[in-house]
Formats: sequence, C-alpha cells, structure tokens
Amino acid sequence: MPIEYTDPDEVFDALLHAQLVQPKVVEVGVAEAFNRVLAEDVISPIDVPAFNSSHLDGYAIRSVDVADATPQNPVALTIRGYIDLGAQPPKNILAGEAYGVRTGSYLPEGCDAVVGKEDVYVEGEKVYVKKPVRAGAEVVRKGSDVAKGMVVLRPGHKLRAQDLGMLRLLRYDRVKVYAQPIVAVASIGSELTESVEEAEQGKTLNTHAYTISALIKSAGGKPLYLGIVPDDMQVIKKTIVKALSRSSLVLTIGGSSVGEADLVSKTLKTLTPTFYKHGLKLHPGRVGGCCVINGKAVLILPGLIQSTINTFVYLALPLIKKLTGLEASRYESTVRAKLAEDLIFHRFPDFKKMTWVSLKREDKDLVAYPIRGDSPMLNVLVRADGYILTPPNQMTVKKDTYVDVALVPGLSSLP
Amino acid sequence: MPIEYTDPDEVFDALLHAQLVQPKVVEVGVAEAFNRVLAEDVISPIDVPAFNSSHLDGYAIRSVDVADATPQNPVALTIRGYIDLGAQPPKNILAGEAYGVRTGSYLPEGCDAVVGKEDVYVEGEKVYVKKPVRAGAEVVRKGSDVAKGMVVLRPGHKLRAQDLGMLRLLRYDRVKVYAQPIVAVASIGSELTESVEEAEQGKTLNTHAYTISALIKSAGGKPLYLGIVPDDMQVIKKTIVKALSRSSLVLTIGGSSVGEADLVSKTLKTLTPTFYKHGLKLHPGRVGGCCVINGKAVLILPGLIQSTINTFVYLALPLIKKLTGLEASRYESTVRAKLAEDLIFHRFPDFKKMTWVSLKREDKDLVAYPIRGDSPMLNVLVRADGYILTPPNQMTVKKDTYVDVALVPGLSSLP
Repeated sequence: MPIEYTDPDEVFDALLHAQLVQPKVVEVGVAEAFNRVLAEDVISPIDVPAFNSSHLDGYAIRSVDVADATPQNPVALTIRGYIDLGAQPPKNILAGEAYGVRTGSYLPEGCDAVVGKEDVYVEGEKVYVKKPVRAGAEVVRKGSDVAKGMVVLRPGHKLRAQDLGMLRLLRYDRVKVYAQPIVAVASIGSELTESVEEAEQGKTLNTHAYTISALIKSAGGKPLYLGIVPDDMQVIKKTIVKALSRSSLVLTIGGSSVGEADLVSKTLKTLTPTFYKHGLKLHPGRVGGCCVINGKAVLILPGLIQSTINTFVYLALPLIKKLTGLEASRYESTVRAKLAEDLIFHRFPDFKKMTWVSLKREDKDLVAYPIRGDSPMLNVLVRADGYILTPPNQMTVKKDTYVDVALVPGLSSLP
Repeated sequence: MPIEYTDPDEVFDALLHAQLVQPKVVEVGVAEAFNRVLAEDVISPIDVPAFNSSHLDGYAIRSVDVADATPQNPVALTIRGYIDLGAQPPKNILAGEAYGVRTGSYLPEGCDAVVGKEDVYVEGEKVYVKKPVRAGAEVVRKGSDVAKGMVVLRPGHKLRAQDLGMLRLLRYDRVKVYAQPIVAVASIGSELTESVEEAEQGKTLNTHAYTISALIKSAGGKPLYLGIVPDDMQVIKKTIVKALSRSSLVLTIGGSSVGEADLVSKTLKTLTPTFYKHGLKLHPGRVGGCCVINGKAVLILPGLIQSTINTFVYLALPLIKKLTGLEASRYESTVRAKLAEDLIFHRFPDFKKMTWVSLKREDKDLVAYPIRGDSPMLNVLVRADGYILTPPNQMTVKKDTYVDVALVPGLSSLP
C-alpha cells in the first residue's frame, strides 16, 4: 500500500490540536528556576530603590547650598550623621546640612544631590564642598529601576540569569514555572544493541537515542529512555502503552520504513488512535509520522539519522516547547547567512526540503555551506550548525542568496 | 589614594598569564558528555558503514544485469537470499542474481546497485526488475559517512547532541572531557540578607549571587556559593582562604567601591598576591579588579549590578571558558545589528564602554536598542539581549550603524 504524504506543517497543526496534554504549572525556588519557563506575571510589589538613593560614596546635600562653591571658597556644611546601607533615611535635610552616605544609601527628603568624596574635604563636623553640583546629581530616584506595580516579566518567558536576580530583588522566594514534560523514547529494531562488544559482532550500536535524549533536554523536556525494543509488535505495543502511562509525549525511533518493516505504525493502529498520520512531505523525513492515543502524541521518527533529526525538529521540538509553556517553534532563533553554493534538488518537488549547513564568518558576513550526504550519514549533522528550509516547488536556491538558517537548541552553534 | 585604571584587555591578558590553574581532564560516559568540552581527538576506528550498504528496502543487484529492463520486458533475477540488518554480507553476487535487502543492509562484493520494491515484482524465487538502474544507485559506500582513521572531532569542541551519537557510532563508551571548574562566589556586605523578612526591615536582599551562579553554570563552571560575608576584614580573609582551597577561581561580589568600603582589595593585599590589579578602564565596571593568590585568580566584582555583570563578562567569563578547555572569550557569539538610536557617551573617554541592548527583528534586519539606566539598575539587564563594546576615544556611535552585539551564555536570547 503506497504511503500518502502530507505537508508537515499541516500535520503538525492537526497534531497540536488533537493532542490534549497541557503545560503543567509547578512552583520552584528561585535558584532552581534558571532556564525554566515562567508561568505567572511578575509584578513588582515594591519601588526599587525604595527611596531616592546615592549613586556613590560621599555626602548627601542640597544643591542650592553649594551653588557658589569653588576650590578657593569651599562651602562648609554641617555633617548631621551617616546613613548606612539599608538604613531608613532621616526625615529631612535642612539648609547647610549634609549626611555621609555610601553607594546605595537612602537619602532624606529635601536632599537633591550627592557630592563625591573627591570634591570635598572634612574638618571636624564640617564637610567642605569645593564645587557646585546640579540638582539630581548622583541621585538614583525612588522606583527608577523598578516601579511598584510594574509588570517586569510575563508568562512564557524563559528565565535567564539576570531574571533570577530580579525575582529576588522583587522578594520572590519561589516562583511559578511550567513543569518539564517527560518525553519517552523507545529505539525500535532487533538489529540494535547498547553493547560495543555486540556491535563488533555485527549489531548496530544504538546511537540515535543519545542524540534525541540530548535534544529533548535542550528543548526543555525530561527524556525517559525505555531502551531497545525488538521488531515484535507485541513488545512494541507493551512499550508504547507503558510509555503513554509515564510521559507527556512518546517518541519512537526506527522501525518505520515503507513496507514490511513498518511495525511501529502497524502497532499504533491497533491502539485506536484518535489522530493518525504517516508520511510527511518533508525530505529527508518522509516516512515520519504521528498519532494521538489517549490524548497523548506518539511521534514516529524514522531510523535514518537525518530523517530522525528532521522529524524531531519538525514535530517533536515544537511540541515539547509548547508543553514547556513556550511557543511551538521549530527553532530557537534564525540567522541570515549568504549561501556559499547553489542548492539544487532533484527529487520530491512538492516537498519541503531541509538542508543542513555549516556556518562560517567571512568578512562581516555569515556564510552557509550546505553539507552534502545521504540521510543515513551522521557526519552531516556533526558538521552542521543549522538548517535551511526550501519550500515546495522550489528546486534551486542560487549561490549568494541570503537565506534564514534555523538554529536548533542542543544541535546548533553559532561561529 | 586615587585608583589607577588600566585597559581591561591588558588586565585580562596579564591575569591569564599570572594564574596557574589548568583545565583538568576527566573521563565520563557518553550520555554525561553533553555540553562538555572534548579533551581528546576523536579518530574513527572503523569505516561507517562497514561495507557498502543499501539506502532502501529492495533488492541488491548488478546494474549491468538490468540495463535492458522495461515495464513490458522486466528482467528476471534469482533471489539468492535475504541480507538482514547487521548481518555479514555474502562474499559476492553473480550475474543474474539478487539479494533481498533492508535499508542499511550490507551488500556483497560485485553488487553495485539496489532497486526499490516499487520497481520490481516477485514471483517464487525470481524478482522481476522493471527498469534499468545506474551503477551506484541507492548504494551507500563503505566509509562514506566516516572513514577509518578520520579525525571527526577535536579537543576544545563543545559536545552537542549529534556528537554524542557520533561518539557511540564510533564505539566510545566513555570519553575524555575537561572537568567543570569549581568557581567560588562570596557576597560581601553587612547590609545583605538572604531573608525576605529581613529585606522588609530594610536590609538588601542578596540578588547578585543568584545571577552570577547561573552565569557560571552557563559558562561551563560549577558555582560554589559561600554565602554573605560581613564587612569585616578578618571574616573576608577567612572566606577567601577557604574559597581558594576549594575552587579553581574565586569571585567576590561587592565591598569594592573607591574608599573606605573597599575592604575586599585591602584584604586581598594581605594575602600576598603574585598579581594584583584594581581599577579597569571599563564603564560601567571601573572599580572591578583581580589578583592571583597561590596561582589562583580572585576576581573583584563591584556591587552595582551592571558593574558586577560587566566585570564578570570581561574577566570571569573568558577565564571560566579557558578553564573548561574552550578559548577565552567574552561572548558565546556575536550578531550584527543596526543601531536604533545614537549612542553618546559623556564620561570616561579613554575607557571601553559596555552598552546593553535589546534586539528586535524588523523586516529582515536585527535592530539593537540601547537600554538606558544607571549602573545599579537591574531592569536594564532584564531587558537586555546582548552588549555592544565601544572602544576608547570613541564617544558616539551613530544611529543606523551596524554594530556587533555580543551574546553572553545564560544572559542573552536571540529574537
């Protein structure tokens, strides 16, 4: 029975609709929230700084008092005290008065400037200011960093290093983030082994699960590796049922060619999927597919590594991102690069074509070098930094064209 | 005593020279090697594939045998057997013979083509080929993915998802990587607290250690947080001595302004550093510094958050990268972006100026928006995606200039 191919974006949209798993919200300590996706509005409960405060070590003064100061005729002010870091400031400052302050000390009402230590000298209880300062000089205004009530971060934002500092600044001990979805992975194939010794006897070392597990982590999921499953529909079925009970999303690798060996999709059909699609207008990757069982997605990743990765990137990556509270997207970001040579496709005219490229910096340009090599070749991906997608019915992309190179978390690196 | 400022690149180069810690090599399992830096040459011990192999499910043949095949006059070949995945191939194939194969099956000597199932039909022990195929068709050549003896990955390479698969493919169980350096962090300041309750009484919540610890992780190090240290030289000294004994690199945060509160550098001087520099021609960040004690670097990060981060980026990030076996570099990568508005500096003419920018995609361009705000303001960094460095003696950068925006791991995100 010939396989019927469907546009992979259509397939993904339908899958996203058909699968019913939603991102879960959990609460974690701020330090544990690094790289997690925020699940609440972060609204400042306070003004930062809480009062006007000093930008340097020196003396809090009234600018009007020192308008006539010169090195020859410094203005003497009475030091009323020192304001420590974190201390409530005195209620006010009167004409002719000064307070010693440190960087960050809060300032009293009426104080509109700070003069640095290099522009004064002290004798007894007097500080002598040697030059005028403008109103506002070296004063950090109350709420100028963060104003009370300001929405600082929104749900769906991936928390970076500085965001953790901000959460603490706004007095968060714990924060709501999305749970990391558990993504089950099963490698299908009686020819596979985890043992180097058996590989030396002719078996195929299981390599793909290593790569896919790392990509799941990079996408924000938690890989749950279920091991190698032989070419046996009963065992495959048991594994998938177990996987569905323990994860938010199931990936099978291999066992998915066109014909007799297509055991995975045959097995999935016996599990009464509410959605089922096998065959993508994606090259390499056309024997990829997906279905939904009990509301959970099962993705069929083909066994030839470039097809494995391409269907992962097309179907799994955006779904994992969605389940972590991010937008469903096939890349982390894209960069524009100049194509180093003509790209010519000979087959699959109405397919989307994924071409892996390496990126080099040449003069001020990023240049994309397409990497040739058949879909079983892992070395293509080892040399790759990102991919180009060529739309259906376009069979050439000319050298020197500027193309968008998509970057995949865990796989790409930018030179 | 006025502080003397030195070019931060000069300081870093001298520091790198003066500190004596070298990257350490450890061996880890392949799955644990994700995102670690490779410490050995990865040279392929094998050809991949080990023999010529099939690119699809079908029949291994000799192309010469089917040169005259047509749908009307198919050529009959005798099926001599089936070659399973991983099985040693038969020694050779004779004229008029075929072997059933799966995608990846090894091919016998003399076989120079595979014909797919869609172009044949089978009757009894005969397969009828309906069209000619060119020599080499659907054959993946021995060693065409990875040739025996090929250097596939080199030391200093950060291992990505696909590299793990490659290591397994080449039969690695374990791999040599550089150890993650332990980076000690101490927050200096009697005004600091870890408690939200105490912050509500006027103390300053310790925010910076959260951000710095996350940045250390992103740079490939292991943060070792030593807690808050009061403004007391004896306690600071004890903490630094302890930190030096437990880590490859020590970071102090705060306690480093110009003048009385400069307790950290006063303390460090009592520890007989072999290298000592305080004061950088870097804005913000000029009160940053560093020294080397017992061959280990201690970095003085100022307490105002932008200065903290800038000196981290300038001194700590490249040193941590160096200690993880990577090149010492102040960024992960750079992107070119169009400056959205004039950048004008009024102070520090002979300094390097770091300006944090947010990045937006506008049409096909990346546009960099400089973020204004004083060095204590954390919100500047929360809104930032990367930084621009303006060289000494340049006081303006014109709107619409294309600038290099540096991306910092753990801090930056690319739209």
